[in-house]
Amino acid sequence: MRGLPDLWTHRNEGKDTWSAFDIIGHLIVADRTDWMPRVRTILEHGESRPFEPFDRFAQAKESEGKSLEQLLDEFSRLRSESLAALQALNLQSADLARRGKHPALGSVTLRELLATWTVHDLTHLHQISRVMAYQYREAVGPWSAFSGVLKCSGHSAP
Amino acid sequence: MRGLPDLWTHRNEGKDTWSAFDIIGHLIVADRTDWMPRVRTILEHGESRPFEPFDRFAQAKESEGKSLEQLLDEFSRLRSESLAALQALNLQSADLARRGKHPALGSVTLRELLATWTVHDLTHLHQISRVMAYQYREAVGPWSAFSGVLKCSGHSAP
Repeated sequence: MRGLPDLWTHRNEGKDTWSAFDIIGHLIVADRTDWMPRVRTILEHGESRPFEPFDRFAQAKESEGKSLEQLLDEFSRLRSESLAALQALNLQSADLARRGKHPALGSVTLRELLATWTVHDLTHLHQISRVMAYQYREAVGPWSAFSGVLKCSGHSAP
Repeated sequence: MRGLPDLWTHRNEGKDTWSAFDIIGHLIVADRTDWMPRVRTILEHGESRPFEPFDRFAQAKESEGKSLEQLLDEFSRLRSESLAALQALNLQSADLARRGKHPALGSVTLRELLATWTVHDLTHLHQISRVMAYQYREAVGPWSAFSGVLKCSGHSAP
């Protein structure tokens, strides 16, 4: 995404939807407040302390006044820190079976949390490719009939 | 995708669907036989010669006996060549308005062809993120309810 014109990175799919820029802000917030903090909550408190609910709209504050390049740098730094911290825990199979409490979903395992971290990345890569393609929905002319990504209307969390 | 386990790169979504590996093979075939060759067909023949139909199943032959790393190297090389050739044409606005003939869609402009090249990349990035997430559809446990990419059932060309 570095160096792309704003057309690709700062436009969304209409009212109350996210641009690629917004999505990077969301990934930053998720790495800072969600993934590794929840790993630690499971290891330290098990199911006795529910996870902090995740604020899915905190990225506006996160990204205010920043450029896309600044957000990408910040995400890259945070993700490296998260992965180093995860590796340092040296989790074993028994650890991965430990349970925590999701505020809406109930009992979950550490293994499920880590799988979800990965799928969350893929959800937003899937979304970024759709949001970017949307900006060219008219530019492709009759090829829109053959452009699969233009037929995706999104699959938001409830 | 480099260095990822086969779980992520060589599994598909079931019968008659593509793995990430298959998709890279498809992108190679498209760059070799479709995009720049069609640009040249428009510039040299206009609407008098329809484009060669694109073989959407040629990647099996393309990727036979190759590793993912070999395909990624090949795609990277081909794409660099395609972009250098495009730049060398030094296309002007009047060129972009020139028309060619798609075998199924009829009259199209060079501008639409180039926009479609981009959206085709995004369609397959969208597909790769979905195919990879599919491999973790059970691993995420109850989080599947919140995982948007797992709700995408694909949007294939007709």
